[in-house]
Amino acid sequence: MADFERGVLDAFRAANPGAPFIKLADRRVFYAREQYAEQFGSDWGRAINAITRHADFYRNLPVIAGAPEALREMREAGHEVFLCTSPLTGSRWCVPEKLAWVENHLGASWLDRIIIAKDKTLVGDRLRQCILVDDRPVIQGLADPPPWTHVLFDAPYNQNQAEQRPRLSCWSDWRSALSPYLDGH
Amino acid sequence: MADFERGVLDAFRAANPGAPFIKLADRRVFYAREQYAEQFGSDWGRAINAITRHADFYRNLPVIAGAPEALREMREAGHEVFLCTSPLTGSRWCVPEKLAWVENHLGASWLDRIIIAKDKTLVGDRLRQCILVDDRPVIQGLADPPPWTHVLFDAPYNQNQAEQRPRLSCWSDWRSALSPYLDGH
Repeated sequence: MADFERGVLDAFRAANPGAPFIKLADRRVFYAREQYAEQFGSDWGRAINAITRHADFYRNLPVIAGAPEALREMREAGHEVFLCTSPLTGSRWCVPEKLAWVENHLGASWLDRIIIAKDKTLVGDRLRQCILVDDRPVIQGLADPPPWTHVLFDAPYNQNQAEQRPRLSCWSDWRSALSPYLDGH
Repeated sequence: MADFERGVLDAFRAANPGAPFIKLADRRVFYAREQYAEQFGSDWGRAINAITRHADFYRNLPVIAGAPEALREMREAGHEVFLCTSPLTGSRWCVPEKLAWVENHLGASWLDRIIIAKDKTLVGDRLRQCILVDDRPVIQGLADPPPWTHVLFDAPYNQNQAEQRPRLSCWSDWRSALSPYLDGH
């Protein structure tokens, strides 16, 4: 829903004008801090890490195009939709600002549909067909296998996945991309 | 973990000296606002409701005796333990203050074990034996039946349950009270 990568890059460049940076299309691993450390040295890795821990970082993340519309359409189509998000360990701002973000961009009615869990495999219901749309390539936890089908939301750093996987490239494609993993709709 | 009822009563009496109040032992329904409204009129019901929406209400809730020790013992015994909590709809303080409460009373290492979900039936794993210890008499949601055995944590307002149910009367009893619903321990 929120464009974390764009938010990191914009905030990093604003805080470090003239510093080396990685274009979004060139991001190759999930954690930006790792790629910055590898390409530019550990100081820049730490600088990236610090960006995500500043007040207002999460609150100001831009919306990914089409996300609010897709959520609304999913609910209109009769699906139960929840926003499942993992907090950034050690950040006091992450959770309250994610709540504020949802209220600002989706409306207060979505606040009760937020589920906050570090381990997303503990969220869902094996008695239903559940889908987790997430850009993180590998999502593991205590529940193995997880109760949902992971549909990978496209991002530059998750293109190097060898196997064929369910994917969603942009939110407006949600009906065709998700329908194979849902029945009754 | 947190003594919500004691916190409500103490804050209510501090804010409304001389007002009628209901002793904890005389609380009969889950929502204090409903019982206050019924016994004393709707203004007092609203006054109770407002207490829980003040800044610092959740942050200052007292700890239920033995809760931190029981959690520590559970983990030492090899159990996976999470703190599953529902946010108060419409309160901007509830979630961040619950996080602060956990950090203050249990330590920062528990922050990643918090799962925040309005619908607790969506949390857990049917492939494991899960227990939800909760004082709310009826917990329903999308997952039916839920993936956990509900063990009712004793409270005055949940004593009027007709049927025999699994109960936990105080945290120090956790081993004997929960063991029938866990295997391998």
